[in-house]
Amino acid sequence: MSLAELKAWMQPHLDRVEAVLSAGIQADSPARLGEAMRYAVLDGGKRLRPLLVLATAEAVGDAPQSPAALNAACAIELIHAYSLVHDDMPCMDNDVLRRGKPTVHVQFGEAQALLAGDALQTLAFEMLTSQDGSVPAAVQAACVALLARASGYQGMAGGQAIDLASVGLQLSEDQLRQMHRLKTGALLLCSVQMGVACVPDVAEGVRMALTRFGEALGLAFQVVDDVLDVTADSATLGKTAGKDVAADKPTYVALMGLEPAKAYADALAAEAMQALTDTELDEGRLAALRALTAMVVQRNN
Amino acid sequence: MSLAELKAWMQPHLDRVEAVLSAGIQADSPARLGEAMRYAVLDGGKRLRPLLVLATAEAVGDAPQSPAALNAACAIELIHAYSLVHDDMPCMDNDVLRRGKPTVHVQFGEAQALLAGDALQTLAFEMLTSQDGSVPAAVQAACVALLARASGYQGMAGGQAIDLASVGLQLSEDQLRQMHRLKTGALLLCSVQMGVACVPDVAEGVRMALTRFGEALGLAFQVVDDVLDVTADSATLGKTAGKDVAADKPTYVALMGLEPAKAYADALAAEAMQALTDTELDEGRLAALRALTAMVVQRNN
Repeated sequence: MSLAELKAWMQPHLDRVEAVLSAGIQADSPARLGEAMRYAVLDGGKRLRPLLVLATAEAVGDAPQSPAALNAACAIELIHAYSLVHDDMPCMDNDVLRRGKPTVHVQFGEAQALLAGDALQTLAFEMLTSQDGSVPAAVQAACVALLARASGYQGMAGGQAIDLASVGLQLSEDQLRQMHRLKTGALLLCSVQMGVACVPDVAEGVRMALTRFGEALGLAFQVVDDVLDVTADSATLGKTAGKDVAADKPTYVALMGLEPAKAYADALAAEAMQALTDTELDEGRLAALRALTAMVVQRNN
Repeated sequence: MSLAELKAWMQPHLDRVEAVLSAGIQADSPARLGEAMRYAVLDGGKRLRPLLVLATAEAVGDAPQSPAALNAACAIELIHAYSLVHDDMPCMDNDVLRRGKPTVHVQFGEAQALLAGDALQTLAFEMLTSQDGSVPAAVQAACVALLARASGYQGMAGGQAIDLASVGLQLSEDQLRQMHRLKTGALLLCSVQMGVACVPDVAEGVRMALTRFGEALGLAFQVVDDVLDVTADSATLGKTAGKDVAADKPTYVALMGLEPAKAYADALAAEAMQALTDTELDEGRLAALRALTAMVVQRNN
């Protein structure tokens, strides 16, 4: 799949995700809280996690418009968005720029940002359990379990706690990998796992190969992030460049040097591609996942 | 049910809730995050919401040891605990005392408190969807949907946003009731609703009467809270007394005066008791709910 073909595949999916997210957060809500939530989540972001959910569900299933996958795609983006809102707050990374706009606490105040992040997390679980009968309860419960585990204290939130505790420390490569496996990797892996969970009766071998795919992709994403933090400027990134270095945070670039970090990202992408081959699914089914993997490694923001 | 009988009924339930909560949060977790979460949720609190879940499930069902109800009881306490951690933070109510101890951000720092609150919320949804087969998926999904809706931007979080936006304002009684219906009432009502959702085939009339019970109890709880803020001292409350008045927040006492507010709490408790009668369930089944209602109105902290 060429980049042009990927874009053509992506666009209707992005439109559907945006429509569901927008319909799910009413601006006319108590004390402008919905407005702050919409600001945090609409019209921005690469939507990588939703696209991974949808591409995975399409790879293993036969329902390209599956409501289960669409709900899961939106839910994981809500979790991602909540984590960014809280991560940017003064007591955490204290950042003022995100997706090219002032961060939520700059725009709406700290208290409102705290509540908006809280409510975005809640909405993720509400979205996974719509009671309209369109998604079997077993799929709903499985997705909630996966998403909660991936984003909780033994997943994303735990990774952020390690991140905070690691400022100024020398981490070994193992420690750094563990931090990123939780902080970023858990949610990317979860995107793939939820895509699988939305489809009945996926063969165990396929499921395991896709898990390895999600793990490798998640780590590749973070290594590229560390590279971009040094090589890109803030305008391109849409967020403050160089902030990891400035905050004296451990990164793959600090640990390995710039060129070896780039080479490591490429090696991880190759590992992800091999895991896709190992699923033994038709290449046509895997095309979007392969193109998304290439995009993760080649992105410049 | 006398107070002594209520205590005898409560104790084994409290022990089970405490055991499940404690087992669900490992202290040995990334960067002390589990420790902060345990500090926030264990060994404290009246556990009113879990007790309401369990008492309701027992009133309408025949399985006093239902794993569904126990999970739901713990989940709603985790949501309550997360809301207190975030509510106490400097950008919100800036409180230093809770349940007679320093608040989480005082003890662990603001960033860790933010993450601990986030992860407590996540854990609530993880706990509702344990994949051990003990709870039907339909019950899991229904409880997640109820809890997410009650605690999100159109529930508890929305109520907190109104609360923040109302400092120094004169609210009408309708506006004050709407704020509390969301901020405190939604979660208390949800306790009752989850208790019902854990039991199959509850008659519609019973469900509706219990909903009215939960609504009246939720409002009674908040009116009593406003009264205690003026009449109790910090040592008895285990949190800072007089802080609503100090923060110039609208309260029922400010709106009605102290004695009328007390009388209103009593009237709401009577309404809750009548709703229990309207369920037409055996009085033996309703005894714990009646005793909990009396406890809410007569409590001194």
